[in-house]
Amino acid sequence: MGSLDTNPTAYSAFGDDATSDFQPLNPDDVRSYLHKAVDFISDYYKSVESLPVLPDVKPGYLRDQLRSAPPTSSAPFDVTMKEITASVVPGMTHWASPNFFAFFPSTNSAAAIAGDLIASAMNTVGFTWQAAPAATEMEVLALDWLAQLLRLPSSFMNRTGAAGRGTGGGVILGTTSEAMLVTLVAARDAALRRSGSQGVSGLPRLAVYAADQTHSTFFKACRLAGFDPANIRSIPTGPETDYALDPARLLEVMQADVDAGLVPTYVCATVGTTSSNAVDPVGAIADVAAVFNAWRVHLPEFRHHLDGVERVDSISMSPHKWLLTCLDCTCLWVRDTHRLTDSLETNPEYLKNDASESGNVTDLKDMQVGVGRRFRGLKLWMVMRTYGSAKLQEHIRSDVAMAKMFEDAVRADDRFEVVVPRNFALVCFRIRPQGAMTEEDAEEVNRELMERLNRTGKAYLAHTAVAGKFVLRFAVGSSLQEERHVRSAWELIKKTTTEIMEEEM
Amino acid sequence: MGSLDTNPTAYSAFGDDATSDFQPLNPDDVRSYLHKAVDFISDYYKSVESLPVLPDVKPGYLRDQLRSAPPTSSAPFDVTMKEITASVVPGMTHWASPNFFAFFPSTNSAAAIAGDLIASAMNTVGFTWQAAPAATEMEVLALDWLAQLLRLPSSFMNRTGAAGRGTGGGVILGTTSEAMLVTLVAARDAALRRSGSQGVSGLPRLAVYAADQTHSTFFKACRLAGFDPANIRSIPTGPETDYALDPARLLEVMQADVDAGLVPTYVCATVGTTSSNAVDPVGAIADVAAVFNAWRVHLPEFRHHLDGVERVDSISMSPHKWLLTCLDCTCLWVRDTHRLTDSLETNPEYLKNDASESGNVTDLKDMQVGVGRRFRGLKLWMVMRTYGSAKLQEHIRSDVAMAKMFEDAVRADDRFEVVVPRNFALVCFRIRPQGAMTEEDAEEVNRELMERLNRTGKAYLAHTAVAGKFVLRFAVGSSLQEERHVRSAWELIKKTTTEIMEEEM
Repeated sequence: MGSLDTNPTAYSAFGDDATSDFQPLNPDDVRSYLHKAVDFISDYYKSVESLPVLPDVKPGYLRDQLRSAPPTSSAPFDVTMKEITASVVPGMTHWASPNFFAFFPSTNSAAAIAGDLIASAMNTVGFTWQAAPAATEMEVLALDWLAQLLRLPSSFMNRTGAAGRGTGGGVILGTTSEAMLVTLVAARDAALRRSGSQGVSGLPRLAVYAADQTHSTFFKACRLAGFDPANIRSIPTGPETDYALDPARLLEVMQADVDAGLVPTYVCATVGTTSSNAVDPVGAIADVAAVFNAWRVHLPEFRHHLDGVERVDSISMSPHKWLLTCLDCTCLWVRDTHRLTDSLETNPEYLKNDASESGNVTDLKDMQVGVGRRFRGLKLWMVMRTYGSAKLQEHIRSDVAMAKMFEDAVRADDRFEVVVPRNFALVCFRIRPQGAMTEEDAEEVNRELMERLNRTGKAYLAHTAVAGKFVLRFAVGSSLQEERHVRSAWELIKKTTTEIMEEEM
Repeated sequence: MGSLDTNPTAYSAFGDDATSDFQPLNPDDVRSYLHKAVDFISDYYKSVESLPVLPDVKPGYLRDQLRSAPPTSSAPFDVTMKEITASVVPGMTHWASPNFFAFFPSTNSAAAIAGDLIASAMNTVGFTWQAAPAATEMEVLALDWLAQLLRLPSSFMNRTGAAGRGTGGGVILGTTSEAMLVTLVAARDAALRRSGSQGVSGLPRLAVYAADQTHSTFFKACRLAGFDPANIRSIPTGPETDYALDPARLLEVMQADVDAGLVPTYVCATVGTTSSNAVDPVGAIADVAAVFNAWRVHLPEFRHHLDGVERVDSISMSPHKWLLTCLDCTCLWVRDTHRLTDSLETNPEYLKNDASESGNVTDLKDMQVGVGRRFRGLKLWMVMRTYGSAKLQEHIRSDVAMAKMFEDAVRADDRFEVVVPRNFALVCFRIRPQGAMTEEDAEEVNRELMERLNRTGKAYLAHTAVAGKFVLRFAVGSSLQEERHVRSAWELIKKTTTEIMEEEM
């Protein structure tokens, strides 16, 4: 008695509702929809080179083209795809275009997309090891592989050796900002404990440090974590250090803070800043930070400059930026995972399980902001497994070589100057002030150059300011990019510059 | 002169590197890899019903099966896929299985997966409107559509009417935790300003409130934002309110805090708590919060109970939980977007552009933790566009009906009790203490029932604690689930209970 099959009233109250024939994951639909999406993508990659990189659309354009309310009834999937082709594609800034040279490119590969696709389909929520053992283990393994590829010290790895597990480990997050936030919070809590603060009463005395070239998101993450805006130090840099953080200057600032009763808590060093790819001297900065017992973090973009990395507390890098692993994939390694989990651990009853309580597993929710998490390790592992380290290195060397090629061309043309020494695959350049041209004129001319280039649809460059100068950023590395695209962009830059100069005369 | 084509030395220094033939997005590879992934997924959905929901693997199993270091050379994609089939699938907890009844299911659909796939391939980084106009506009549109579907007040919508744009708007984030964090930070900063705090000196006086049934991530988000752990109020609930937050109790606690010199800053109400799906009375709570000028937020799971929603400041819900939109997709709406952007805005030189400066566009980076962001709006829009609101409602009604069916069956069997009234699609039940069985015995018997069920591989249920009682959670809604799966699980529960009871005697 009481079973479903002998209790018809359990159904009748709900009539047909309980036997809905809507099957959102019907395997035939899945196959059909996804194959259509794949064909769309393949066609997109073939044609994206010829599409304007920056679209010519006005704010609100999409609302004008699509329905303003959700439809009541269902539509064939082809209708959805048709609207994407007709209305979405023409409004895209094509980050996948080989003519995209703005910001840092978001790199990608067939293996990464396939990995993300499988992750979407499996749709695991790997908050604890038990909730998705393979997802957790794959993430840990992929991070260890990547650490080896970057030749990080083994103290950052999770691998269990004969001597048992160390304290090192990592996690894959959505953004660099999240990596900064979780380490800032761990450093904050440790500094509060160290300084004998009651609750957060000591928070107004904590101070954090980075060069003024550091990504704006660092300063935002500090504010999110509750640091006093007055104690977030943006240390000025200049051409004398190629815009890198000067350790002597850092020491002075930190010492002055200590003298004023503040508690140095966290120092951020960057290898390859966003604005100009400046390289902070990691080892020397870590040594200064260690004097004050502050958390030492750094954000690398390239292995070559990682001297001193064994002396930092955490490292973060985003394979979606250079390692062909599509958004979002930011890797964070720490030397002591307990310093993170002390601040981030939650233990609600409904997530308790034997594996977690054994202490033999990693529950990745305790190293991130959220609880839920995609199976992000899969695509990172698939990229390394499919392409192998040699191809990945070749890919990075090729980007750097193309940027070097562009830099050499800029340097060989008297009308231009390279404003900051090139590091990695970013060239910061501008039309040089010449003749009667003032610095103000130069800004206007360079802004005009950027805007005209971008309006052609044949190239997209962004700009930055270095020491008050308006500078164009030429970032190489979009995954469909070849030498010929760099070459065409340079030809376009020269031609457009000639036109502007002639008009100016 | 100086052009690339007349300056051969620009190439020679780098030899072959500049002409790498590695094409990570070769359209043929893209097509081939992705079609293989699609076939894998289709087969996976066909077979997942017969796979053990919880895998039988030990910590470290994957490292033992796969290489411990990244390979140097590349491998055919088939090798990668073979390793996934052989080593990853057997270690998965199959959230996609129709026999998954744990936690809240992560729902999915063919349209959502296709949307996520296209987003991965386009790989835009939509921090500003200009960086991806279609992605920003699609996200705004999808949020407005969903707001209409949930019948949210128009004050939360972005839509531009004859009267121009209001202050409302939304953003799609990765997790509910991030939605809580960004609103907490906005509320924190507003409370600091309001209370005349110098910097964050007033932070130790701010207080925040939620019911003890609120998701653990609320308390974590409060700590991330720097609130004093001593001022994070977890207000006890009990059976007299069906575990919902009692507004009178809230008022008392808030008034006592004010009397003690604290500043009430933020109140979190939940419609459908994680533990037991309790429903906090949104309107009454908003009224109490308004007395103290605190930020009023709530997290709904279901439209039906949204009375009073017009009086809250923000709303968050995750379509990946119930709206067939795979991870990750959490929607946050606020009545006044400026209250978010005041705290979260960054404005580095390299992101400046005319569209942002015109004030006519939304730059979504200013409503989230990070800068980078996937094109998450696409999949949400594709789900609504393809299936239409009628099917989506049918899907939710069907889940609720199946849960009701299960609840009725449990109620009809004297050996069991439903511990908390069912809301939505979650049934919290247990074997009832009977005969000589003490409460302690009951916990042991129910834990044994859960463990045996989960070991069969034929069902996966999680547990929670309600008023100190160990309770099984039966959550309906996995996207492949049909009535027969609910029925089989109930048969298995009855049979296993009979076995346990017989052994106990």
